[in-house]
Amino acid sequence: MFKKVLVANRGEIAVRIIRSLKEMGIKSVAIYSDVDRESLHVQLADEAVCVGTAKAQNSYLNMKNILSAAVGTGAEAIHPGFGFLSENSKFVEMCEACGIVFIGPKSETIDLMGNKANAREQMRLSGVPVIPGSEGFISNVEEAQEVASKVGYPVMLKAAAGGGGKGIRRVASPGELGKAFVEAQQEALGSFGDNRMYLEKIMENVKHIEVQIFRDQHGNAVFFPERDCSLQRNKQKMIEESPCDLVSAEQRQFLGEISIKAANAIDYINTGTLEYLMDKDHNFYFMEMNTRIQVEHTVTEMVTGVDLVKVQLQVAAGEKLPFEQSDIKCLGHAIECRINAEDPANGFAPSVGKVTYLYFPVGNLGMRIDSALYAGAMISPFYDSMIAKVIAHGKDRNEAIAKMKRLLNELVLDGIKTNQQFHLAVLSDKSFVQNQFTTEYLEKEFMTVWKEGM
Amino acid sequence: MFKKVLVANRGEIAVRIIRSLKEMGIKSVAIYSDVDRESLHVQLADEAVCVGTAKAQNSYLNMKNILSAAVGTGAEAIHPGFGFLSENSKFVEMCEACGIVFIGPKSETIDLMGNKANAREQMRLSGVPVIPGSEGFISNVEEAQEVASKVGYPVMLKAAAGGGGKGIRRVASPGELGKAFVEAQQEALGSFGDNRMYLEKIMENVKHIEVQIFRDQHGNAVFFPERDCSLQRNKQKMIEESPCDLVSAEQRQFLGEISIKAANAIDYINTGTLEYLMDKDHNFYFMEMNTRIQVEHTVTEMVTGVDLVKVQLQVAAGEKLPFEQSDIKCLGHAIECRINAEDPANGFAPSVGKVTYLYFPVGNLGMRIDSALYAGAMISPFYDSMIAKVIAHGKDRNEAIAKMKRLLNELVLDGIKTNQQFHLAVLSDKSFVQNQFTTEYLEKEFMTVWKEGM
Repeated sequence: MFKKVLVANRGEIAVRIIRSLKEMGIKSVAIYSDVDRESLHVQLADEAVCVGTAKAQNSYLNMKNILSAAVGTGAEAIHPGFGFLSENSKFVEMCEACGIVFIGPKSETIDLMGNKANAREQMRLSGVPVIPGSEGFISNVEEAQEVASKVGYPVMLKAAAGGGGKGIRRVASPGELGKAFVEAQQEALGSFGDNRMYLEKIMENVKHIEVQIFRDQHGNAVFFPERDCSLQRNKQKMIEESPCDLVSAEQRQFLGEISIKAANAIDYINTGTLEYLMDKDHNFYFMEMNTRIQVEHTVTEMVTGVDLVKVQLQVAAGEKLPFEQSDIKCLGHAIECRINAEDPANGFAPSVGKVTYLYFPVGNLGMRIDSALYAGAMISPFYDSMIAKVIAHGKDRNEAIAKMKRLLNELVLDGIKTNQQFHLAVLSDKSFVQNQFTTEYLEKEFMTVWKEGM
Repeated sequence: MFKKVLVANRGEIAVRIIRSLKEMGIKSVAIYSDVDRESLHVQLADEAVCVGTAKAQNSYLNMKNILSAAVGTGAEAIHPGFGFLSENSKFVEMCEACGIVFIGPKSETIDLMGNKANAREQMRLSGVPVIPGSEGFISNVEEAQEVASKVGYPVMLKAAAGGGGKGIRRVASPGELGKAFVEAQQEALGSFGDNRMYLEKIMENVKHIEVQIFRDQHGNAVFFPERDCSLQRNKQKMIEESPCDLVSAEQRQFLGEISIKAANAIDYINTGTLEYLMDKDHNFYFMEMNTRIQVEHTVTEMVTGVDLVKVQLQVAAGEKLPFEQSDIKCLGHAIECRINAEDPANGFAPSVGKVTYLYFPVGNLGMRIDSALYAGAMISPFYDSMIAKVIAHGKDRNEAIAKMKRLLNELVLDGIKTNQQFHLAVLSDKSFVQNQFTTEYLEKEFMTVWKEGM
């Protein structure tokens, strides 16, 4: 096992990784930007290196400085967390060149899954159901017309090399397709130097269901019970849970098996998550694969008792998975609420400043709060607004919801605005409680009523 | 199920009970003494009633005022927590007279187990192994001599109605017995109005192993995996864990079965704990039964996933146990450290005052901190010095210890002195890590070395 690991991240995920390192007896190295000097991840780590100024491009995305920090402190491996460099294949290659283990999949795998058209094609060839659409790339408008009329409108035109919403167009009818195609292709060329396009049917009334898998360097693989991450605002997950009570044991097994099959096909190493859409008839369609630990891995940890970050380290060090599929049980139900520093009453505008008073309700069974907050901490405007993850675990979904409501009612976070009360409103919403919501529910239905009540 | 329950306690256990009530949708009524006006249990409860002045005799032991509070607020049941009135059979009778459900066993059961000589005799007759000693009461010195020479010195003379260290004498040799017997008997008469005595062999090099049981009003009963509470100072438990890795599966089953047998024999209702001594040959000897929830129930909750307070409420309301013996699994290992407001460097003198800064390390899997603390809370001199219970749960004992060390290293509690560092020293001690310690280890061995190192 490694003796020293650098954590190339900040905030709650850096704190969470450092805590697992400590429990494993591994020395931790934090990196930080100048505004993060007093952050909790810096305080907790055994060593900390400043890698640049506030702007992420200068610090948390500064590959050379981060690698220098790793080499300089003698770290043998780098854990990227999520976001920042976690899905950057070039960084993985640079780590390799420096003789440092990147805790994650190979750079080729990241590249393959990073190109959404290639990932889709790879999954289709592996026998994983994908969203109806093109096979491979689309080279002209006529081809697009043909595929679109086959799968049915509305459709989404997407740049193969896409990301950040560039080179994407929603197309509602055949008449709109020609103009949209040309525009999207030009935008893709300008943004990525790559004008290859693909097309997918727009799925409506669907749930976002995802399956986390783990695969070691010896070919052993397991899947974990699915997560339901349908509660989203602005395409950002807000509440996640595991399992999804609407998914049957047979569907769970099916989803797990196809996910493992896909991971085997691409020789996937370490942990990753396959995101699917589930329609009302419980058909599943592959969307994309995240080749890193995810924010919501916590709910999986609560229902399985597995510390996924510790296993990431074991697998990266060449060890075999410490469990087999039959060891993975799903006990009870877990829900996570992402607490963001934002003002729901003001269009969810980011809120920054000093946390003047903090109370974390830490007692009783089945709770966990992952956060880098402490009384006196500063929320800076430079980074993601997620400041805490509150996780409740109960014997069933109703108990988990009741516990979450209690936790959010007890949580005190003074000095900044957060979405705490907004979460409480969702948790009491009938459609949420009855598990009758899709990815569009929050914005299209809940928020309309919520705004009126404000 | 009850609609409203009064919690006749304060501090962390009151907070812990109120939290379970909230999750069950039951209204909670707190009671408080005038100095506890701003305590967390008062803040969290739906209603709160002041029942008297600071001294427990005037408030938390004031049966009439507490019952008035229950009647006045319309509470249907009272949860006594531990300590205070939790094992007071007179209070149970008064509850019954007022038509209020006491959440615990019947008053006769509390009386029977409260008289230590009767409890011992009852257990012996139920086939539970007891500490070698007298059968029933001893009426004179000659009888004491006879029993003592049969079981072997040293022995302990004890008042049957005993408690609080009154009417107890350690006797090392036959020559000391006569004087000790007369003295103890007189003290017992003065303290309890009852001079009946009994005698037990003093067991040395033993572990304190206890088994919590649950039994409903329909005769269903289960036992939980044992707890090892051998790490004690001044006869007070300091660190507790579950399971005890030295106890085999067969011994666990044996202990559980005799405990259930004993509970059936006395028609025990609700939860209780049978405390045993385990000698180096793994013989078990019944010591006493606690007829209430215990401080250390938390470690059992962590390894079984059962919220024991919720089950107490269900059983008190007449429901059947929500599980059978086969449902009770022991997953991993849990350890609890009792954080006391005291100064180890100054003879563990109590520390009082205001908590000026507080940081609870709440993230990651397998941790829990039960406490009524918050930044700004006052630690008063009137009550027990235990201010927090830090609980770590890992896949095995080593992981639980590693996690506990991390938690205690991260915990920040400014303004008062605590035994936090003392705990950390114990957690790193070789005998503790190797699980080679008895009830006498901490004071006779560890503290000698620790004092030298100070």
